[in-house]
Order: sequence, then C-alpha cells, then structure tokens
Amino acid sequence: MTPEKIVENHKKYVLQSWSKQGNLNPIPVAKADGIYFYDFDGNRYTDMSSQLVNLNLGYGNKAIGDAIKEQVDKFCFVGPSYATEAKSTLAEMIINLLPDSFGKVFFTNAGADANENAVKIARMFTGRNKVFSRYRSYHGSSFGAGNLTGEPRRYPLEPGIPGFVKFFDPYVYREAINFESEEEATKFYLTKLREQIIYEGPDSVAAIVMETITGSNGVIIPPKGYLPGVRKICDEFGILMICDEVMAGWCRTGKMFAFQNFDVVPDIVTFAKGVTCGYVPLGGVAVSKKVAEYFDDHLLSCGLTYSGHPLACAAGVACVNYYGEAHILDNVAKSGKVLGEILEEMKAKHPCVGDVRYIGLFSAIELVKDKKTKEPLVPYGKDEKGIMGTLVGMLKKKKFMTYSHENMLFVNPPLIITEEQIKEEMEKMDEVLTYVDSELI
Amino acid sequence: MTPEKIVENHKKYVLQSWSKQGNLNPIPVAKADGIYFYDFDGNRYTDMSSQLVNLNLGYGNKAIGDAIKEQVDKFCFVGPSYATEAKSTLAEMIINLLPDSFGKVFFTNAGADANENAVKIARMFTGRNKVFSRYRSYHGSSFGAGNLTGEPRRYPLEPGIPGFVKFFDPYVYREAINFESEEEATKFYLTKLREQIIYEGPDSVAAIVMETITGSNGVIIPPKGYLPGVRKICDEFGILMICDEVMAGWCRTGKMFAFQNFDVVPDIVTFAKGVTCGYVPLGGVAVSKKVAEYFDDHLLSCGLTYSGHPLACAAGVACVNYYGEAHILDNVAKSGKVLGEILEEMKAKHPCVGDVRYIGLFSAIELVKDKKTKEPLVPYGKDEKGIMGTLVGMLKKKKFMTYSHENMLFVNPPLIITEEQIKEEMEKMDEVLTYVDSELI
Repeated sequence: MTPEKIVENHKKYVLQSWSKQGNLNPIPVAKADGIYFYDFDGNRYTDMSSQLVNLNLGYGNKAIGDAIKEQVDKFCFVGPSYATEAKSTLAEMIINLLPDSFGKVFFTNAGADANENAVKIARMFTGRNKVFSRYRSYHGSSFGAGNLTGEPRRYPLEPGIPGFVKFFDPYVYREAINFESEEEATKFYLTKLREQIIYEGPDSVAAIVMETITGSNGVIIPPKGYLPGVRKICDEFGILMICDEVMAGWCRTGKMFAFQNFDVVPDIVTFAKGVTCGYVPLGGVAVSKKVAEYFDDHLLSCGLTYSGHPLACAAGVACVNYYGEAHILDNVAKSGKVLGEILEEMKAKHPCVGDVRYIGLFSAIELVKDKKTKEPLVPYGKDEKGIMGTLVGMLKKKKFMTYSHENMLFVNPPLIITEEQIKEEMEKMDEVLTYVDSELI
Repeated sequence: MTPEKIVENHKKYVLQSWSKQGNLNPIPVAKADGIYFYDFDGNRYTDMSSQLVNLNLGYGNKAIGDAIKEQVDKFCFVGPSYATEAKSTLAEMIINLLPDSFGKVFFTNAGADANENAVKIARMFTGRNKVFSRYRSYHGSSFGAGNLTGEPRRYPLEPGIPGFVKFFDPYVYREAINFESEEEATKFYLTKLREQIIYEGPDSVAAIVMETITGSNGVIIPPKGYLPGVRKICDEFGILMICDEVMAGWCRTGKMFAFQNFDVVPDIVTFAKGVTCGYVPLGGVAVSKKVAEYFDDHLLSCGLTYSGHPLACAAGVACVNYYGEAHILDNVAKSGKVLGEILEEMKAKHPCVGDVRYIGLFSAIELVKDKKTKEPLVPYGKDEKGIMGTLVGMLKKKKFMTYSHENMLFVNPPLIITEEQIKEEMEKMDEVLTYVDSELI
C-alpha cells in the first residue's frame, strides 16, 4: 500500500480517537527504531512522549519482539482458565516487584479496564459502593474508568454512575491559597479529604482511586506526606487505596512503581502501558494478599476473554525483564537529571513558563501569560484559537513529537533516551518557548 | 518452567476470571494446533468452544502468525493518530465486508470496550441518553458493557448507570405463551418492545443494543421477521440499531456477520474475537456513513491508547483474509449441517434435551428434567449441586472441552473443524447426555 493510500484510507475508513474527523492529516509511519520513527519520505521524528506514555523502551526492542515471535510459535491464545508459562511467569514477576503485602494479579487488556476491575474488586471486597477519585485525573474513557476521570473526557458518560465521588487533588501551583510549605499543603488537602469522606459516610466508601502522580492532566506530583496521609485515612475508615500506575508505573518516575517514591503501600495497583510498552495490549490489577484471599471463597465477578492473554504476557515477561537487565532505572536517573536541569533553566529563562514539574522522565511545562498572576496561556477548556495545537505543530515541524493538555506541554520520552538526545531535543522546545515569550504573551 | 510450577504460580499469583480462587486446578497448556491443544503429558484436548468462541480458525494458523511476526519486524506500536498500513488495510476490508451504508471503524481492544464505545457514539450522534438492551444478554463486564448485560454478571455493577433500560428477548422456547407460529412470536415481541419504548419516551432513546444472536446466554436465534421489525421501530423513532457481533460475527453463523442471516442492516456493528481469533486482542465499532459523517465536525469523544493497534490490525488483516481464501464459510456450511443433524438426533433421542438451537457452528443444548414441562435441569442461578459443572467435567475427561451456562451446554468449535471431527466429538456428548437421562432426571 502506498503512503498516500495509507493516509487516504485512514481518513476514509478510520474513526480516530478524540478528534473531529474532518481535518485529519496523519503521518503514515513506515518504520521505527529506538526513540525515532520515520515516514515513507525518510523523515525522522523523535518520539518525546513515548507515544501515549507507553513506549518506555522505545521502538524495535529486540527482546520483546523475539518473545512475541517465540510465543507465536507455541500458541497465541488460550483462555483465562488455563495455565500458561507466560502468564504464570509474569504474574510472579509483578508480585515480586511489589511490596510483600501484594498477592495476586488480575490481567486485563489495558489501563481503562484495569481501573474498571479495580473498582469492582474493591466494591466486592468491602461490600461498599462509593468510590472516591479526583478532579484533574484521567483513568480511561469506558463508563467505569471514565466516571473515575475528573475532567472533560468524563462528560460524554454523564449522567454519572451512582456512588462515584470526586475530590480535589493537591495541585499546589494553582491552589486558591498560597501555602507556606509542602507540609502545610499536605495538611490542607488531607483535612479536606477526610472531611469529605465523613460527609459522604465513611462506611459507604469502598476505595480512593488516584493516579499516584497525575499524568495527562499535568504531571501533578503529590506534596511530601500526602500519599502516606491518604493511606492513614484509608486505614482509619477501612477504605482501599488504589494507585493507578498506568502511566506512572514501570520505571517512568525513576522507580519501578511511582508510589515507591513516596513511602507508601497501596492495597491495589493498576497498571498497563509500560508492562509491555504496548507491543501487545496488556493491563492488570495487582491486589494485596488480604484482598486476594477474600476471593478464595467468594466469586471474583470479573472477567474478559483476553485476561492473561499468552502473547501479551510473553511480551510482558520480556519487557519487565529488560527493565532490569538493561538497568533502565539508572538511565532514567541520569537522563532525568538532565531533563530536570533543562526544565529549571527554561522556567528561569522564559516568561511564559509558569511551572515545570518533573520526576524521572515524566514532566510537564505549564505555560502562562504572566508568571505572577499565573494566568494560563489558554483558558481551561477554551483554547478557541488552537494556540496549544499551534505549539505542538511547531514542535512537530522540528520533528519533536509530543502532545499538549490545556496549557501544558509534555516531555515524556522513552526511558532509553540518552543525556545527549535530551539536550538536542530540548533545544527545539527552547525555540518554541522563545516564540511564545515574544508572540503570545 | 515446569508444568507443576506453571500450575502452582497460576494458583498462587493469578486472579482467574469468574471463579472462586480456592479450588482452581487449571490445565497447563504446552502446545496447540488446529482444533486441539495439549498439556505437558501429551494429553490432547479438543477445543469444542473455540476457547471463548473466539478461536474461529483454531490454533497455530500460520498466516496470522506470520503476519504478526512481519509486523514485529516493522514496529509493534504507534498511537491512534498515526496512519499505518495494517490499520488502513483492515479498516477498508471491514467496511467492504459490510453493507454499503457502512462508513468507518473505531478500533478497540476487545468486545466490552467495543460495546462501551458504541453506546457513547450513539449517545453523541443522537443527543439522547437512554439505551435499550435485553435480558439474557451478555455484552461485557466493564461498567458500560456490564450495564448493557441482562443477566447476573451485571449485578456487581449496580446500582446501575442512569438510562440503561432492559427489555425481554425473543426466547420463544421459554416464553410464558405458546405461540402458534414464528410470525406470531415476532409480532408479540415487537409490539411489547414498541410499547416499552413509547412508555420510556422515544425521543430519549439513543440506541437498541442486541446480540444479533444471543450468545453465552443460550444461542437464542431471533424468530423470522424479528430483526427487521426492530429495524422498523428504530427508524420510526430515530433510534440507532446496534448489533453486537462480538461472538456471532466472523463466519460463526455461516455468514460473515450474523445479521446477514436476517435481511436487516444495523446502524452500528460491534465486533472482536473472530476479527483476529484473539491471536492479538482487537475489537471495534463499525458505524454507518451517516453516523461517521456526524463526527467530521463534532468531536469523537472516544479514545484508548491502543485504538488501531498495529500488531493487532496486522493479525486482523491476515485473519480476515484467511476466512475468504480458505473458504471458511463453505466449511461452516458443511460441518454446520452435520452438527445440526446430530443435535436434532440428540433432541429426538434424549429425554434430557429440551431444545437444541444452532446456526452455522454456533449451538447450544438446553437440558431439562422434563421435556413437556420444560423444567430446567438446574434452576436459574441456583445450580447448587454444581450439576452443570459435573457435566462439563465429564466432557473434559473425554477431552471434549467446552463450557456451560445455566442449564445449557455449548458446542461452538473452531470453524475449521471437519465433518468427521464433529461426528467423533459429538459421540462424547451423546454419552454424557445418556448419563443425564439415566442419572439426573
């Protein structure tokens, strides 16, 4: 198929996610390798978002590719009730990477259904109905995951599911109060959360679901003590703490799982993306031994055809092994340090950069019209001139591929990126920010 | 890993779908080929359910395997906003297999999220909220798909999502009325449906969602004229007709799509399973041109990381091509005829067989204590002695692998099964039915 026909068919026959379909102009991808992909004219694009923050190991990872091929030669599929080496190996590996309190894994196809099933499991285990989640969070766009989601991608799913309650996240940079310290911020957010739980009725709350670090809504990193404080509230009221690590897990933040940065142990962890880097779709729900044991003699009323898919699990085994063997965490530490330094320089240099937030190779640049007032470069939900799209387009012209959300630009490259590559690419970002300084604020 | 360790790990680390975890005893699968799979002791099992009615082409299909390997060598993944040969090819193939009125495909990971997104699309397109679906249906177990579901697998998702309304399916065999003809049954069900829509408020109904042929709840085949009648009601009130072809699609019923048996054209078709046979997880929503065009200038507020996954689409291209090249529909006609004849013989011979329902290679045997009263072999939702599990276990001992639901046994083998293989395997079923006749009724 010619590249022209590939594009034509995409426009003619495919409904593309989160888009108006009338003006699509997709790049046809010919090949890909490392942190780069190529169109059919040989243009090289640098993937500075790991696609949708899933390609942690970049393109063309041979270990994962070989594992997929080997499993093809055995069998691609048997159902969830059969035992396979791939599934049995991966489940053990995941539990061994988690704290000792973890017991079992329920495998899903991706992140949304991981969150769906985590909620179901928490409700079954606790016998309670309500589920707390946060504004400015994204957990998926199916009905359950979308009702957890605390931003406009939820709206098409309304009227909402009874019992899904939202609370505010610790978005310190934009809080209506100026905190004197991280500790003060933490105290504020925890007090408000506890208060809200009391008013909702603690005995009716099954779970608190959080992205450990809020991802596509702006890499919002919890202040010191926040997550242990949530843990304490959960313990006080018998509520399960669910950390959504779909985006933040698998070395992205400099730890295998993001919660490991914060001295806290959740009851349930949901994951996807980085478990296979998306080479084959896979997600899952890891639960504590206590939760797992409950289902020894209670029906686990969760199921999907592809739970524990052998091909996906084989890819997962290779991928998770690779994180260790290739010392990916070391590279995240090195390249992440460089990225952090560059981001701080940008914040100091550019009037349009209100805030930079980063941990490991997970980062966002928040653009403002005025550093003092913090007025966002584009108003929330109303970027009517398409300014952020223009900036992403400018980066794209420089072959720096990433995405934006509201007034933020994201830098989440594959975790194999070198310090040199970071420096080279971030010069392009610097040029775009200079343009914003001079033309847009 | 030894087979013992594979089983041990499964029991120790995996939460298995729809099960109490305390007494699992999964078969460790070593290899698989055609309609058979094998454990590590060399025991051969015949897959008479195509796993979960997804392995339409059985195990080890070389065309699909090769296509997966080839795509691995190009790239396993790029995101939904990029054009790829695999996605562009598959989308065109699917639209070309559907009636001329169809326009575009939104790809998902599997069947549940296909149904989730179909409902979202119908609500956005119509601007209406309510969604009709049927008792005795299964559409998935995520919150949206599970709220469509009309049987106990929905219960853990309650209290339900506002606007999900249930109506009764045309389960003629167990209707409280004895109909004199199929036509009379059809008239009854359509009159009741239309009446219910009027009482719910036709202007608030976005869609009617149906399994074209009810699958895991008993291969319930609509009576003559039923689906065209539903189509007429949809047209009268501006409601979208959504056919869930996750199980019934892709040659299973003797046509490429099940609705093609019934002289009807839906607005939206959801699919999964047979599109790749589950070699790589894939599902999708095919929509009419009219629905597709709406999203030219309206935001399609649907999305998932793996929408249009290249590896999955590459498997899909090979799989869908194979249906044609290997003349699978011809084999379904031949082997399906033999299966139908055997099932009719069983119904005539065995007092315990109340009904057999079959179309193509999609069939169920409904067991009763008494043919006249139609009293089910086990009461609905209360098989407390585990009788059906015992029967499935007896079949398993004979290496005839399938599943049950309520008082029904399913026979849904891979579509490559020969007439001889059908005859050979169904002798085992005959022996088990003889046991039921003599011991259980």
